[in-house]
Amino acid sequence: MARIVMKFGGTSVADLERIRSVAGRIKAEVEAGNQVVVAISAMAGVTNQLADYADQAAGIYDLHEYDVVVSSGEQVSAGILAIVLQDMGVAARSWLGWQIPIRTDDTHGSARIEDIYADEISRRLGEGQVAVVAGFQGVDAQGRITTLGRGGTDTSAVALAAALGAERCDIYTDVDGVYTTDPRIVAKARKLDRVTYEEMLEMASQGAKVLETRAVEMAMKHHVRVRVLSSFEDGPGTLVVDEDEIVEQAIVSGITYSRDEAKVTLTRVPDRPGAAAGIFGPLAEAAINVDMIVQNVSVGGDETGLTFTVPQADLARAVAVIEGLRENLEYGDLLADPDVVKVSVIGVGMRSHAGVAQKMFATLAEKGINIQVISTSEIKVSVLVAEEYTELAVRSLHSAYGLDAE
Amino acid sequence: MARIVMKFGGTSVADLERIRSVAGRIKAEVEAGNQVVVAISAMAGVTNQLADYADQAAGIYDLHEYDVVVSSGEQVSAGILAIVLQDMGVAARSWLGWQIPIRTDDTHGSARIEDIYADEISRRLGEGQVAVVAGFQGVDAQGRITTLGRGGTDTSAVALAAALGAERCDIYTDVDGVYTTDPRIVAKARKLDRVTYEEMLEMASQGAKVLETRAVEMAMKHHVRVRVLSSFEDGPGTLVVDEDEIVEQAIVSGITYSRDEAKVTLTRVPDRPGAAAGIFGPLAEAAINVDMIVQNVSVGGDETGLTFTVPQADLARAVAVIEGLRENLEYGDLLADPDVVKVSVIGVGMRSHAGVAQKMFATLAEKGINIQVISTSEIKVSVLVAEEYTELAVRSLHSAYGLDAE
Repeated sequence: MARIVMKFGGTSVADLERIRSVAGRIKAEVEAGNQVVVAISAMAGVTNQLADYADQAAGIYDLHEYDVVVSSGEQVSAGILAIVLQDMGVAARSWLGWQIPIRTDDTHGSARIEDIYADEISRRLGEGQVAVVAGFQGVDAQGRITTLGRGGTDTSAVALAAALGAERCDIYTDVDGVYTTDPRIVAKARKLDRVTYEEMLEMASQGAKVLETRAVEMAMKHHVRVRVLSSFEDGPGTLVVDEDEIVEQAIVSGITYSRDEAKVTLTRVPDRPGAAAGIFGPLAEAAINVDMIVQNVSVGGDETGLTFTVPQADLARAVAVIEGLRENLEYGDLLADPDVVKVSVIGVGMRSHAGVAQKMFATLAEKGINIQVISTSEIKVSVLVAEEYTELAVRSLHSAYGLDAE
Repeated sequence: MARIVMKFGGTSVADLERIRSVAGRIKAEVEAGNQVVVAISAMAGVTNQLADYADQAAGIYDLHEYDVVVSSGEQVSAGILAIVLQDMGVAARSWLGWQIPIRTDDTHGSARIEDIYADEISRRLGEGQVAVVAGFQGVDAQGRITTLGRGGTDTSAVALAAALGAERCDIYTDVDGVYTTDPRIVAKARKLDRVTYEEMLEMASQGAKVLETRAVEMAMKHHVRVRVLSSFEDGPGTLVVDEDEIVEQAIVSGITYSRDEAKVTLTRVPDRPGAAAGIFGPLAEAAINVDMIVQNVSVGGDETGLTFTVPQADLARAVAVIEGLRENLEYGDLLADPDVVKVSVIGVGMRSHAGVAQKMFATLAEKGINIQVISTSEIKVSVLVAEEYTELAVRSLHSAYGLDAE
C-alpha cells in the first residue's frame, strides 16, 4: 500500500469520456490498495477562454480578480471528477485551494506555494477517500484566491506529494514519457526510463514542455519521485529521480531546442567598466529576461561588440529600451535577429566527462552550421544557430552522442 | 447618500457589452454618492451548462459536488464585473460566498442563508469600495460551498440588503417592473408603481416569475424595500413594500396564471375519516406538492369524489403513487388531466372588500368558462379551468377588475 499523487492535465480531462477514463485509472490505483490524491487541471481550452474574458474586459486588470475568474476552471473539473468517481463506487470529494488550504504568497497570477495544511486530507486518505484537488490554485494570507501560473497543476501535484509524504507523483500527460529529443524532429528519439531532476530541469526550461520547471525544482528540493506517463495509453513512462537512483548514467541524456529566442547585437560599445550594467540594468527593470550573453574581446581598441538573447515576445520591447538609452550610452549599430534557435546538449554525466562541448562544436562544424553564441552550465551546453538549421542540428547531435534508437 | 444593493440576473450580464452597461449603472450610483453592493448571477446559460455537466456525469450525484461545479458561474461573472468596474475607475472587488462568509445550512443545492458576516464589506463600503458579490452561493458550517437553488441571486441580494441595512434592494431584470398581468397575453396590462410583499409573494408563486419567492419572503421579514426594474431601459420600475407604504390600495392588483398544473380526480372514495390522509400522506412522502384540493360533499351516500392538483412534472409519479395504494385504499376511477390552468386574482384590498370572488365567478360564467376547482387565501382567489381558456379568462378578469390601461 502506498500513498500516491496523480496529476491529470487539461487534455486528459477534455470531455466527460476522458474524465471517465481518468476515473478508471484512479479506481485501479485505489483497488490496488493505494491512497490516492488527484491534482486536476481545467478541461482543455477552459483556462484560455476564461483568461480571454479578462483580456477583453480590460487592457490592464487586477490580478486578484483574474485569479477569481481563471481558478473556476479547475473548480468545475474537480467537482465533475468527484461525481464520476462516486458514480463508479469510489469514495471521493473535491478540494479547492482555500478549503485545504494551500497557502501561497500574494503574487497573484503566478503565486508560490508556501504551505499546505494537509492534515484533514491525510486523515481522509486513511479512511479510503480519494482527494480530488483543484490544481493551479491556492489562497493568500488575506483569504483571496491565487493561481500558480500556467502549468501550475504540475506544481500543485508535486507540492501535495511533498506535504503528504507520497511515495510517488504520477504526472499523466499526452505523451508517454520524456524523450532524448523531440520525436517530431528526430524519428529515432528514444524514451528515457529515468532522468535526473537536474536534467529534467534543463529540459523543461530549454523547451521540452513535458513538466513545469517550478514543479521539477520543488520535486528536487523535497526528493519527490515524479513519473511522467501517458493518460491515453499504458506504459511505465519516465521516472524523474535523484542522481544516485540512476545506476548507469549516460553522459548525454537529451538534445533540446528552443525557437523562442531572439538575438540582439550592439556594435562599438565602449570597452569600459559599467557599459554592460548600463544595458542590462534597464532591461531587467523592464522585466525582460536576458538569457545568453557574449561580449567580444576587445583587441587593442577601446570598443567591443555585445550580443545577447531575449525571448522573442520581448524583442520589440528590448529594442525600444535600448534605443531609449542612446543619450546616455554610446554604441554603433543595434541589430535584432529573431530567426535564431537555441540548441542544447544536456546530461549530468558531463560533470565527469570532458569533451562533450568539443564534440558538439565539431558535429555542427561538420554540417556547416555556424555557432553564433555559446553558453554552458554544469550539465548543459547551449549554442545559438540560425533557425533554418534547427532540424539538421538536432538530428546530427542526437546521432553524434549515440542517442538514436536501434 | 444611501447604501443600496443592486442585483443583476443572467440576461443582464450575458456578455461583456452588457456587463459594461451594468457597470455603467453601478458607476452612476457611486457617483450619486451611494454605497453600492452588487449581487450578480452567472452569465446567461452558464448555470444550465454546468448543471448539464453534472447530469451527464452521473444519474444521481452528490449535491456537495454539484454546488462546487455550478457555483463557479457566479465566480466568473463577479470577477469580470470587478475588472470592468476598476477599468472604469470605480473601486471594486469581488466577494465569493465563503469569503464574506454567507453562512447557510447544509441543504446543498437549495440551501438557506442563516447568517451574513458583513462587517468587512461594510467597512469597505464606508471607504467607497463597491462590493461585487457572487450571488446564488454560500458556505456551510463545514466550509463547503452551497448554492441557494434556482433564482437564488434574488435571495442573496435581499439577504445582503438586510444584513447591511441597505435602504433599497434594486432587482435589475429583463422586464421593467411588475405588471397587473402577463403583457404577452393582455396588451392592456399596466405596470404597477407599488405592490405589497404579500401580493408579490402570491404573484411570484403563482407564476409571475419576476422575483424569487424566497427573496420576497425574506424582504417581507426584514422590511427590505425591493425595487424591480429593467437593466436595459431606464424607468422607476415597481417598488415592493410594506402594505402601510401604499396609500391608495386597489382592491385587486393583479391577475396571474400558471399552466404548470395537472388535475387528478379519484371517484368513489369512501366517505370516512382517514381517507384523505391515506392519499395525501403517501404523496407527501413522495415529495409531491399538492396544491388545490376539493372534496365533493357526499349527499346521503358513503362515497365521495376527490380532486386535487399537482405540478405537471410530478403527474406521472403522483398517478403511480396512487395506483400503488389500490390494495389498501378503495376508490373507483383515477382520472388525470394535464390540460388545466390555474388563474388567480390577487390583491391585499380583498381583505376589506367582499365580492371579489363573486365577481370572478360571474365574469368566468359570462364567458362560458367552467370552474373545476376553487381555492382561496386572504389576498387571493384561484380557480382551475381548462387550459384552452387561459387567455380568455385572464383578459376578461383583467377588464372586470378595472386593471386595463387607459
